[in-house]
Amino acid sequence: MADKSQASLLANIPVSSFIQNVASRSPAPGGGSVAAFAGSLASALGGMVCRLTIGKKKYAEVEETMRSVEKDILPLRDKLRDAIDEDTFAFDEVMAAFDLPKSTPEESTERDQAILAASEKAAEVPLSAMKMSLEIARLLVPVAQGGNVNSISDVGVAGLCALTAFEGAKLNVLINIKEMGDTPFKARMRDEVKNLTAEAMPLLDTIKRTVEERLA
Amino acid sequence: MADKSQASLLANIPVSSFIQNVASRSPAPGGGSVAAFAGSLASALGGMVCRLTIGKKKYAEVEETMRSVEKDILPLRDKLRDAIDEDTFAFDEVMAAFDLPKSTPEESTERDQAILAASEKAAEVPLSAMKMSLEIARLLVPVAQGGNVNSISDVGVAGLCALTAFEGAKLNVLINIKEMGDTPFKARMRDEVKNLTAEAMPLLDTIKRTVEERLA
Repeated sequence: MADKSQASLLANIPVSSFIQNVASRSPAPGGGSVAAFAGSLASALGGMVCRLTIGKKKYAEVEETMRSVEKDILPLRDKLRDAIDEDTFAFDEVMAAFDLPKSTPEESTERDQAILAASEKAAEVPLSAMKMSLEIARLLVPVAQGGNVNSISDVGVAGLCALTAFEGAKLNVLINIKEMGDTPFKARMRDEVKNLTAEAMPLLDTIKRTVEERLA
Repeated sequence: MADKSQASLLANIPVSSFIQNVASRSPAPGGGSVAAFAGSLASALGGMVCRLTIGKKKYAEVEETMRSVEKDILPLRDKLRDAIDEDTFAFDEVMAAFDLPKSTPEESTERDQAILAASEKAAEVPLSAMKMSLEIARLLVPVAQGGNVNSISDVGVAGLCALTAFEGAKLNVLINIKEMGDTPFKARMRDEVKNLTAEAMPLLDTIKRTVEERLA
């Protein structure tokens, strides 16, 4: 188990160190953590635009909507910030399972089971990030449509970050189930990925189109 | 001029504080800084996959390419990390220009000129980020095609981050030239955005498709 003390959390190190850690020869933190980070930034930007809209006369009509989005989007910012570390922990568990001994048939069986359990966990973490990113996309739609037009480029970047978070998490679900046999777990993951994608893509497209229209 | 001392640089604050700063009611750091951050992470992930490919027998054929990409991609990581702060500084300058007095015609003219100069600078910073993101996309193509397949999801997230960096920077160029009259500067910016987009999109598509094929 990786050291989960506060001081060692990726969320607590400086931005420049995080970037350096990603670039390092160690595979973690990797794409899963970066995708979660992007999701956290998507919801932070969305929350910022709500705050820059609330209290402005010109936007009185959407004030209630912005207050409601702000309330709902900020917990996702924190959950996805935590997922930066969760993804790296889950990946470390998979690596630890691969390192188990396999010199006897018993050890080999135990190792296979440990790898499977760790891989299932490593797929569940990004699946949960996909669900949160879908929720962020849903919340960003009214911000794109009615938020402060002076911040419309920020909503656009939020949408791009939500896309990165969603599709990046998806790639991490898929790579973690890739080597599994045709288990019910794998089938469920594939179904969930497919259904979530069908829900998220039209929302992300709407955000992109709406931002382009309001920026033109 | 914003305080540019080392301690106040966004790159030096903890990841969680950066996320909180983005979400705050202040419009900076906003989408421009987040887009630059995404670009830095794209190149960090690309560099990581090069490092996870170099020295492996199975990938001896692409070793030279990976070494060359690693050498070229890491300076972009650092330049885009610096752009996180540059974008926020440039935005602060625009805000400062808007705050100039306009009680006499002379003051009003000076203020207009200051706003124009600051807006041009605030468009040049993300234009430069677009060019760096295009370069990252170009470097990621061979990594998607030949990099360690165990890290193919990381290349995919790198591609998504490069897309966010490129398109996010574009939105920031466009919002900064939006209120300008039909100046030669505005025409040049529009042309550059169009040409860079025509170059970047096929590369980003190739990365996406190649990752999907190798992950299937």
